[in-house]
Amino acid sequence: MNKAPISRFSTPEIADLPDDIRTRILTVQEKSGFVPNVFLVLARRPDEFRAFFTYYDALMDKPGNITKAEREMIVVTTSNANQCQYCVIAHGAILRIRAKNPLIADQVAINYRKADITDRQKAMLDYAMKVAFEAYAVNGADMGLLASHGFSEEDAWDIAAIAAFFGMSNRLANVTNMRPNDEFYTMGRS
Amino acid sequence: MNKAPISRFSTPEIADLPDDIRTRILTVQEKSGFVPNVFLVLARRPDEFRAFFTYYDALMDKPGNITKAEREMIVVTTSNANQCQYCVIAHGAILRIRAKNPLIADQVAINYRKADITDRQKAMLDYAMKVAFEAYAVNGADMGLLASHGFSEEDAWDIAAIAAFFGMSNRLANVTNMRPNDEFYTMGRS
Amino acid sequence: MNKAPISRFSTPEIADLPDDIRTRILTVQEKSGFVPNVFLVLARRPDEFRAFFTYYDALMDKPGNITKAEREMIVVTTSNANQCQYCVIAHGAILRIRAKNPLIADQVAINYRKADITDRQKAMLDYAMKVAFEAYAVNGADMGLLASHGFSEEDAWDIAAIAAFFGMSNRLANVTNMRPNDEFYTMGRS
Amino acid sequence: MNKAPISRFSTPEIADLPDDIRTRILTVQEKSGFVPNVFLVLARRPDEFRAFFTYYDALMDKPGNITKAEREMIVVTTSNANQCQYCVIAHGAILRIRAKNPLIADQVAINYRKADITDRQKAMLDYAMKVAFEAYAVNGADMGLLASHGFSEEDAWDIAAIAAFFGMSNRLANVTNMRPNDEFYTMGRS
Amino acid sequence: MNKAPISRFSTPEIADLPDDIRTRILTVQEKSGFVPNVFLVLARRPDEFRAFFTYYDALMDKPGNITKAEREMIVVTTSNANQCQYCVIAHGAILRIRAKNPLIADQVAINYRKADITDRQKAMLDYAMKVAFEAYAVNGADMGLLASHGFSEEDAWDIAAIAAFFGMSNRLANVTNMRPNDEFYTMGRS
Amino acid sequence: MNKAPISRFSTPEIADLPDDIRTRILTVQEKSGFVPNVFLVLARRPDEFRAFFTYYDALMDKPGNITKAEREMIVVTTSNANQCQYCVIAHGAILRIRAKNPLIADQVAINYRKADITDRQKAMLDYAMKVAFEAYAVNGADMGLLASHGFSEEDAWDIAAIAAFFGMSNRLANVTNMRPNDEFYTMGRS
Repeated sequence: MNKAPISRFSTPEIADLPDDIRTRILTVQEKSGFVPNVFLVLARRPDEFRAFFTYYDALMDKPGNITKAEREMIVVTTSNANQCQYCVIAHGAILRIRAKNPLIADQVAINYRKADITDRQKAMLDYAMKVAFEAYAVNGADMGLLASHGFSEEDAWDIAAIAAFFGMSNRLANVTNMRPNDEFYTMGRS
Repeated sequence: MNKAPISRFSTPEIADLPDDIRTRILTVQEKSGFVPNVFLVLARRPDEFRAFFTYYDALMDKPGNITKAEREMIVVTTSNANQCQYCVIAHGAILRIRAKNPLIADQVAINYRKADITDRQKAMLDYAMKVAFEAYAVNGADMGLLASHGFSEEDAWDIAAIAAFFGMSNRLANVTNMRPNDEFYTMGRS
Repeated sequence: MNKAPISRFSTPEIADLPDDIRTRILTVQEKSGFVPNVFLVLARRPDEFRAFFTYYDALMDKPGNITKAEREMIVVTTSNANQCQYCVIAHGAILRIRAKNPLIADQVAINYRKADITDRQKAMLDYAMKVAFEAYAVNGADMGLLASHGFSEEDAWDIAAIAAFFGMSNRLANVTNMRPNDEFYTMGRS
Repeated sequence: MNKAPISRFSTPEIADLPDDIRTRILTVQEKSGFVPNVFLVLARRPDEFRAFFTYYDALMDKPGNITKAEREMIVVTTSNANQCQYCVIAHGAILRIRAKNPLIADQVAINYRKADITDRQKAMLDYAMKVAFEAYAVNGADMGLLASHGFSEEDAWDIAAIAAFFGMSNRLANVTNMRPNDEFYTMGRS
Repeated sequence: MNKAPISRFSTPEIADLPDDIRTRILTVQEKSGFVPNVFLVLARRPDEFRAFFTYYDALMDKPGNITKAEREMIVVTTSNANQCQYCVIAHGAILRIRAKNPLIADQVAINYRKADITDRQKAMLDYAMKVAFEAYAVNGADMGLLASHGFSEEDAWDIAAIAAFFGMSNRLANVTNMRPNDEFYTMGRS
Repeated sequence: MNKAPISRFSTPEIADLPDDIRTRILTVQEKSGFVPNVFLVLARRPDEFRAFFTYYDALMDKPGNITKAEREMIVVTTSNANQCQYCVIAHGAILRIRAKNPLIADQVAINYRKADITDRQKAMLDYAMKVAFEAYAVNGADMGLLASHGFSEEDAWDIAAIAAFFGMSNRLANVTNMRPNDEFYTMGRS
């Protein structure tokens, strides 16, 4: 197991965490076979941990027209543009698994415009990138473009909220030097 | 009262909201004399609303070396760089009140480098801007610089988390065309 | 009265200034009730002062299709993009007064795309921003777009000249650390 | 003689101009052997013409530690960064003549960091470029750096004012499609 | 086998290629077990193909202080910054193999500043990124910094030439929509 | 003759060079009357020299719809954007000669959008600039735009390859401080 530090800041022992946080972490560990480092890095601040993962669940687990794989595409695309190692590598793994496609994550991370995705998905990612880098200029024409690809008003909110939330997450991960677990690199590749 | 829409998206009636959200909104209204639009715009999505304000409270109300006025400086500075009307105007009002200074908000919004603030506060804002725009390059030297101004490791986390959270908030406000309430413009100016 | 320096450079005593400059300053003082700092900061160089204000008058006081309030919108929008405290705060005050609108200045400063202005005014400001940041790419299509909103060739010149002149003014104010007078912050807000 | 239009806007006949403007133009023509197009393009607006050239004279003809050739270096360097054909070509000619150096103008236009100039001149141009593109960040350290190369406070003002004035001029020339006279291209090259 | 086109342009049949090119391609195929698409995409232009691979060999196979794995780090880092799918994915595979490290390629691609590499390697990549994005500003101080990490003058040339060559390669791959072979994604990951 | 160094790196004596390189250099010298410094600077690395000039010849001397003067326009335009003194000055000379136009090189270097060239040539340069600075976004619409101006698929490759190759060349010249020969400045000006 890799012994490099997983954060610039110290991280708590799981045993010392408040019950709800410890339970969430142990549940993830049971399901995944390891504890993704984001849980340990953020657990240093229990209140922020709770808010972060409540928000995360609200955006990534909700039903809607945008599939779970597509939600991960938004994360992976914007996170590489923000140069966030943790988010690209961890969510790249989830994207490969959810899309059942071993190539998709690297493709959308590096240049989604050249990825094996639909035009609708490219329009979704164009908009997500605009939210990530030029949200001040988002306008009615963007909404019209999304609608022309079949995205509803709710979808427009979802895409924007995911891009915005992971913009926060990318910054936290970069500031903390959050280290991706070794396990993520190969998940979903075969 | 201004009748312009407060969001590109429809907003719920307060009476129709879940109890906890309605209670929070009515409490704010009682205290402030009006309902800041961010509450109504985000209430369209109750789960996201709860996560957003839990996070907000965790970052803005917590005790620490960084004063509440300084926290607002971080919000106002990064929000103008992100061209977010709602956040600059609403948090500009809060900053004026918390700093008991009618000039400070406009100064830090437009160019914090020329504002009537201390060198320590300028270092805080330099770092907040780096988190907002170049988080990928944050490194040990930044931590050292903060330390040289008396900021602890906890402070470094606080500043970064506030800049990151409001980066998300700025994007949501710009995408939704969130309108600042008329009341904010003049609060704390005299 | 605020005692902070109004410029990085020393500023002359009004009594020591050449007659024409002293007269102009005293006239402004009589009309406004105070001497805007730009007069004192630039008076250090009488020849440049004269040219600056002659140019200013030629652009801002001339008759034309673009109203005085609209001219101020151009100044405020481009000056915030250039992070010029003096120009945003001083011309924000003038804009509020000329537009008889206490909200407009903060709105256009932070993000004119979301301000309570007409589509014609947004087109005017899009063009002003292009002059301020990408003048090299201004072309016939820009002129056509302006014409489609009812702007004449003369108007196109006016908008561009105002954006260009205040681009110079923004740079001078930032280099000199020109301080906005306290009076400007609240003018026209009620 | 080249018959391409010298401006996107119509230009007046010299004979129709106000006396003072016509006289200035004829004097230049007598001295140079041709009328630089900037005079004809700007003469369309007599008041702006007068202010522009008064300002120009105040900055470019004043005595000081910065030589006339050095002033032209500032113009040529910043004007190429602003992609202004007229200013680079016309002032490139003047720079070659004033510096008695046929190579210098092309060198500083394309990359002043690699030009045959002194370290003091490179520091001057670093500062001029900061004024042109990041004036919001000019600070005491810049003043100290200039001082370390022997520049006085007056020089710091001169450099900044020239960079700022030609920033305006570059924008006007780009918006008007101001055409450099054919004569400028070869002046001072042998 | 994936049937998606490997280039926006048509690609030749191996059998129809000039002898030297066919031989090179068959040799690579024998060694790797497949034909990397770059060979087929560029073979459309035999003269350019020859020059490209002669250059490639001269830079990547030459002996020197910079190891083969380090050369690949330069390629992967700058190629992700240029958003080049082919180069990041193909050279990521080679980097993993040469460094005998399954994690290194994704780390340096996304954010080399946070990768498990030495300070010397970070200095090498800082310089490579400066060559890729601000070569105009490379100066003696950069050379001094490299020297302080033990890089010779020859090494400085090597790093720069690799960054420059792959800057060309990145652009060609993006323009042609050059598709990475499926095989590259998993090479060297276990 | 100018005695300033032509490279940051040492350059070999012509007499000591491998036969093929010496021959190529002497041939150029005989034809031009001087040895362009690029030959001497790159000859320090014979293998890279051979690859560079083979590539150069393949792109610049090949027949096609894009004239030799137009190829030089691509070089001059993109090289000034990359701030490469050697390439703008040397290829500016070649452009003037090939286009039999003493003004064209300075015009396209500084702002090709305002140069005396055809709309077809402007479309060619728009595309070349996109390859140079945003190749990741080149797409089918760019190909369609080129086609609408009569450019074939082969032309699209040629333009892109020239822009990409000289992007490499610009970086090498900037890193080596490659000095343009004095002769280039005046060639083709009369």
